[in-house]
Amino acid sequence: MQGQAMGQESFQDLGSVLHCHGCGRENEQGLRIKSYWDGDEAIATWTPQPHHCGGTKEVLYGGIIASLIDCHSLNLAIAHAYRAEQRPIGSAPRIGYVTANLNISYLKPTPIDEPLELRARLTKLDGRKAWVNCTLSASGQVRATAEVLGIRVQWD
Amino acid sequence: MQGQAMGQESFQDLGSVLHCHGCGRENEQGLRIKSYWDGDEAIATWTPQPHHCGGTKEVLYGGIIASLIDCHSLNLAIAHAYRAEQRPIGSAPRIGYVTANLNISYLKPTPIDEPLELRARLTKLDGRKAWVNCTLSASGQVRATAEVLGIRVQWD
Repeated sequence: MQGQAMGQESFQDLGSVLHCHGCGRENEQGLRIKSYWDGDEAIATWTPQPHHCGGTKEVLYGGIIASLIDCHSLNLAIAHAYRAEQRPIGSAPRIGYVTANLNISYLKPTPIDEPLELRARLTKLDGRKAWVNCTLSASGQVRATAEVLGIRVQWD
Repeated sequence: MQGQAMGQESFQDLGSVLHCHGCGRENEQGLRIKSYWDGDEAIATWTPQPHHCGGTKEVLYGGIIASLIDCHSLNLAIAHAYRAEQRPIGSAPRIGYVTANLNISYLKPTPIDEPLELRARLTKLDGRKAWVNCTLSASGQVRATAEVLGIRVQWD
């Protein structure tokens, strides 16, 4: 966790998203993904539990991978928008993004028993639309890649 | 639940997938989606819980939508393969599919407080590859559409 190790607070702990099942700090039954700046990219690490398995017990479920990618990518878009406005993440008026398209290629099985690294970068902004590329890696190997299209919304 | 109402056992209860977080009957902490035949299509209904919310508490999280679509689509591919071989679902040798690509368009917000309907149909088969189209609806309106590419594998 480079971001955490450097003493950053995660986007979610700063209030980017509060209740979301994937990453809201206030969702006790959620996955609680934490995303951090690494230059212009966002990074996150997350460790699965055994019940997050897919078709076999050794591999991570594709729906969990989709969840990690969805939240991490949209949190990057949100953080980017706050940074562009030179405002702290979570400050009013709150910036939100919703997912319009999620296109994930599962390249290799993702092991369930080790920390995973997510890395996202913004590739294009056009009005309310933000395109993000995201990768999920385990043991230094990319297991899934994704293109995510988010649409900016006002939440408050 | 047309399939259940007609006395069918779900693909998952017949043993299509056992441990998966999205749909395995033996995964007590999973979503336990149940898929049924409706002619050549597969249908499922599933009702969210409040902690499955996304950016706001009123809407379903996109990662859960991805999970429902992933499992329902691959279960259709599995059931189709058993039917093509005129064998009961879950019989040996067991047939599995893994997800290679998941492309989801989120068209409208999905409410969290009502049953959702999933409907999947096979659009193409080519060797080990199966392409599935899937929709998720609430209150009779399609909220998300997806194209899913699955690859057949042998699990036992």
